[in-house]
This record gives sequence, structure tokens and C-alpha cells, in this order.
Amino acid sequence: MADQIRVAIAGYGNLGRGVEAALRQNPDMQLVGVFSRRDPESVTLLDPSVPVYAMSEVETFKDEVDVMVLCGGSKTDLPEQGPHLAQFFTTVDSFDTHATVNDYYAALDAPAKKAGTVAMMSIGWDPGLFSLNRAFGEAVLAEGETYSFWGKGLSQGHSQAVRSVEGVKKGVQYTLPSEDAIARVRSGEQPTLSTREKHVRECYVVLEDGADADAVREAIVTMPHYFAEYDSVVHFIDDDTFAREHTAMPHGGFVIRSGVTGDGNRQSIEYSLKLDSNPEFTASALVAYARAAYRMAKRGESGARTVFDVAPGLLSPKDPAQLRKELL
Amino acid sequence: MADQIRVAIAGYGNLGRGVEAALRQNPDMQLVGVFSRRDPESVTLLDPSVPVYAMSEVETFKDEVDVMVLCGGSKTDLPEQGPHLAQFFTTVDSFDTHATVNDYYAALDAPAKKAGTVAMMSIGWDPGLFSLNRAFGEAVLAEGETYSFWGKGLSQGHSQAVRSVEGVKKGVQYTLPSEDAIARVRSGEQPTLSTREKHVRECYVVLEDGADADAVREAIVTMPHYFAEYDSVVHFIDDDTFAREHTAMPHGGFVIRSGVTGDGNRQSIEYSLKLDSNPEFTASALVAYARAAYRMAKRGESGARTVFDVAPGLLSPKDPAQLRKELL
Repeated sequence: MADQIRVAIAGYGNLGRGVEAALRQNPDMQLVGVFSRRDPESVTLLDPSVPVYAMSEVETFKDEVDVMVLCGGSKTDLPEQGPHLAQFFTTVDSFDTHATVNDYYAALDAPAKKAGTVAMMSIGWDPGLFSLNRAFGEAVLAEGETYSFWGKGLSQGHSQAVRSVEGVKKGVQYTLPSEDAIARVRSGEQPTLSTREKHVRECYVVLEDGADADAVREAIVTMPHYFAEYDSVVHFIDDDTFAREHTAMPHGGFVIRSGVTGDGNRQSIEYSLKLDSNPEFTASALVAYARAAYRMAKRGESGARTVFDVAPGLLSPKDPAQLRKELL
Repeated sequence: MADQIRVAIAGYGNLGRGVEAALRQNPDMQLVGVFSRRDPESVTLLDPSVPVYAMSEVETFKDEVDVMVLCGGSKTDLPEQGPHLAQFFTTVDSFDTHATVNDYYAALDAPAKKAGTVAMMSIGWDPGLFSLNRAFGEAVLAEGETYSFWGKGLSQGHSQAVRSVEGVKKGVQYTLPSEDAIARVRSGEQPTLSTREKHVRECYVVLEDGADADAVREAIVTMPHYFAEYDSVVHFIDDDTFAREHTAMPHGGFVIRSGVTGDGNRQSIEYSLKLDSNPEFTASALVAYARAAYRMAKRGESGARTVFDVAPGLLSPKDPAQLRKELL
């Protein structure tokens, strides 16, 4: 298509591969290249005809790319890459460190405004679609309680954080909802539950040769924002067990808004996800928001944006009249 | 509060009463008046200190009202009141005739653009929050099927349509999902189901003295957009049975997007509502979108708008940084 949106991917791991796959399902967009800090020759895409470039060259593609989808991790990659790339491209990322979203927002907003680009941050399902459902629930049912539950599933951001610890060779992290907490919320009791009470974080780690297990465990469970606030458990396993039991990436969870209107009428909104592949679902959200970011930049917007700032119609390939006719 | 949003209600039935109740839960807004075609003396509000005015006077309140919430029915009231009131006020309505949304959109858009007002249409849960979930589901999971199920519950729009038939003294309409259809969708089968196959419409009618039951039944089941496309059943009952069994207004339903990403990974999104009071929930959505309409008009937007056009953050009383910090 002559007028396809030209998309590039910065960082090609599970998420980047998911973005490549999602772009194939959206004919109004086209993958024009992948940028990697690895040797481009060593990066194998689903479609070998798409070029892979060194990340160091990325600035020279300023006029060849409409939207750059950032597929690095939130802990070390995005805080550096996000603000840097926003100087040259309209970007979309999945930044998921809830505690520092406003710092990251400010770090993106300044360069994006200066460059006239849109920097769409924290896209995916949480943050992302779950955030939206928390906001809709609270706005529509002003009196009530909102509950977010995750899992059982593998958390990409937290797995990345585990892998960032010195001495960790391979690592994954699963979040499990507390069955007791779910039952209390579904009963309509509107309990007060801390994040700690609602979930457990379970890590499976393969150590580097010679690494100190106790030091690794301590570094993980005390990591601020990621583990310190939770009941976190670290299991050490060998390479074979890891390969056999910890390579699938299912996830899921739900957001419940339990509210009251009028003279004591109970109203309940529940949003739930069941995902065979967490990175592919996050990637699919990134691609839908890439379409929106492109449209917002094209109509002259600039600066940092989150899901709260995006009119939902901008996500759809359908034009507004068609959307109203088919989906309203 | 000095800077509260000044809201008025046009039409005071179940929905109007729900809007009055919802406004009490939102301290940034204030109910400044109710407009009715009935004798104002005969209209009893929850708060008797709020003034009731004749609808014929409404234009003179142009500068006293920030948002007019239209609480009439879609069949006869809104097609006339919506375009008329958009000439004077930023409006919000719950227009729910899916088949004619683009006609209604056009009828609102011209006067609203001319007057510099925002005319927010088709707000509620379907159309409204369900529409949004159909759009999000389809945008994020480009390959898949979307299913909307309603009920069991009382449908306000369809009950209003039943009551508009000559010879009907009292009438309600319930929508029931087909249990078989739900089971097939939840299995992940992605069946093709017509609206007719997914639901049954059941009407309970008290006839006016001397009305012809067969003529009433025929007028209902052949009504285009409302009943003609469904399996519709009409039961005739007496006043006492109606009062005893058909005055509560529960509802609910769900939207499921069942999709596939990558190499055959199944991804499922489910949005569900369980409502003790359908009109109070719709009213709560109207109030949240009244806040958004006010903000959009204030920043210079004008014309018709639907849920697809509203950035979700505009629904919340929280400012953008607080929203990001607390809900992202």
C-alpha cells in the first residue's frame, strides 16, 4: 500500500518479535526495519527480507520511519532510549515501572515537544488496557472500589528486572493472585487489600557459574518498585529445568470495579484477559497505539502521551463513520 | 464549589432521576435545574430545592447551564430534542438506535458546530462502554471475532419503543442471551452467530382498555431496528402482575473478543457488567461524559461526538499527572 504507516522496531527480543507478528495482521502498516544493539547479522527476523540496522545508525532514518516501537525493558533500556529516540521519531513504548511514570513522562515530554513528535508511553495491558479500565470504572462509578489482579502469569518487566541482577544467568518471574483475596472481592465485600495481600511474586533463577545464591536472592527481593513491596520467593533451578518448564509466556488477570449508585444499587464492571502469549498481546497493543500516535503526530500534536490521552477511535483502522455504523 | 460544572437535565423519568443521583456522587458538578414538558409543579425531584422549569423556557437558560443532559427516549424525544438543544447547549444523550447513529450524528453535528457546542451522543453502556470494548478488542486483536451478549435484563430503549405503540398502557422488554450461543463462544469456537441466534426479546404489556391485542403484538414484533430482526415474544398481563413482577430494572451482559496472535496463540478479552439498576448505570456514564463534554467544549471543540472521540482521561475528575500516578 502506498500510504502504509512506516513502522520500525527498536530492540528485537520477545516483544519485538511480537510487534513484527502483529504488524502482519494490520495491512495499513508496514515494518520498514529493525534496530538492534546486537550485531545486525546475528538478528533473525520472522521475515528475512526486512533489514536489520545497528542502533547506532538510528538517527539517520529520521525521515524513513513514521513510528518507532521501542521494545526494550523498563529498567535500563527505556529510561535512556525513550527520551533519546523521541528527539527523532514518534515513539510507542511499554514502560511499566508504575512508581516512576511521571518522571518518565517528563523525560519524554520535553524532547518530544521540542522535536514535534508524539512519545506514547506505558502501552500494553498493565499499564495500558488495565489502566484504562481502572479509569473508566472510577469515572463512571464514582463511589466504589477498584481491584486489579494479575496472573497466574509470567511478568515480562519483572523477569527483565530479575535478569538484570548480577549472577543471574536465566530468570523468570510469575505473579499469582491470592485466591482468598479474589473470593472476597467477588463477594461484593469491598475489602481493603494491599498489593502484598493480593499477590505473590515467584521467581525461578538459573545462576551464573560461581554466583552467590544468597546475594542474588537478597538483590531480587529488596529491589524497589519491583519486589520490595511484595511477598517474593526465589527458587534456584538448573538449565534443563528452566528449558523444560519456564519458556511459555501465558498471562492474564482482571480489573473489577465494584460500586454503588442511587439508593444502594450494586453495580459491577469486570474486565478480564486470558492470554496464551503475554508479549504478543502487549505487542498487539503497541501496534494499535502506534497507529494512534502516527495520527496524533500527523495532526500536529507533540509531547508525551498515555492511554488516558488517546481517543479510542484513533486506534482503529476504520474511519469514524464506519466505526459508528459498525461498532457503536 | 465556585467552579463546579453547572449541569441541567432535560426530561425527568428513570434516567433523569439516575442523573440527579449520579451528580450527587460527583462533587465537581452541580445540578442547576431540570426541564420538563410536564407541568413543573408535578415533577418531584430527589432534592426539592432544585428548580424545575418548563421545557419551553429552556433557551433562556443558555448562559446558566454548562452541560444539558438529555434524558428522553431515542425513538421520538431525542431525534427532535437533540438537534434543537445543541443550538444552545453542550449536550450529552444516550441515543441508542444503532441502525441510525450516523443520521443522528449528522443531525447533531451541524447545529453544534454552528453554535460552538459539543453534542455527545449515544452514551451509556450499549451504545457506550460496550461500543468502546468492541473497538478496543478489534483494534488490539486484529484477527478474531467479537461477541456482544445482553441480559437477562430490562432494556430501556426497547421498553420505551413498546410503550410508544398505540394501545399499550404499560410495557417492558427483557433481552435474554441464548445459553447455547454463550457456551459456543466461551469454548473458543469463534462461531458465526446472527443477532437473532444470540438473543430473544421478551415483552410484557398491559393493554389500554379496548385495545386490540393482535394489532399491538403485530406493531411491536414488526418494528424496524427494535424488534423486526429478533425473535420477539409479547405477553399480555394485567396491572397487578406488572406492578408485582416488572418494576425492577436489572441488566447486564458482556463483550468478548476472541483473537489469535503470532503462531496460533489464543488471546481473549472479556468485559462484563452486572447491574442492579440499568438506568442508574447509564446515568452514571452520562455524568462522566458530561464532564468530558464540558472540557472539550471549553477547549474549543464543537460538533457531534461519540465515545470513540473522547480521550478517557477527560472522564475523570483527577488531573492528568494524578491519573498517571494513581491509575496507570
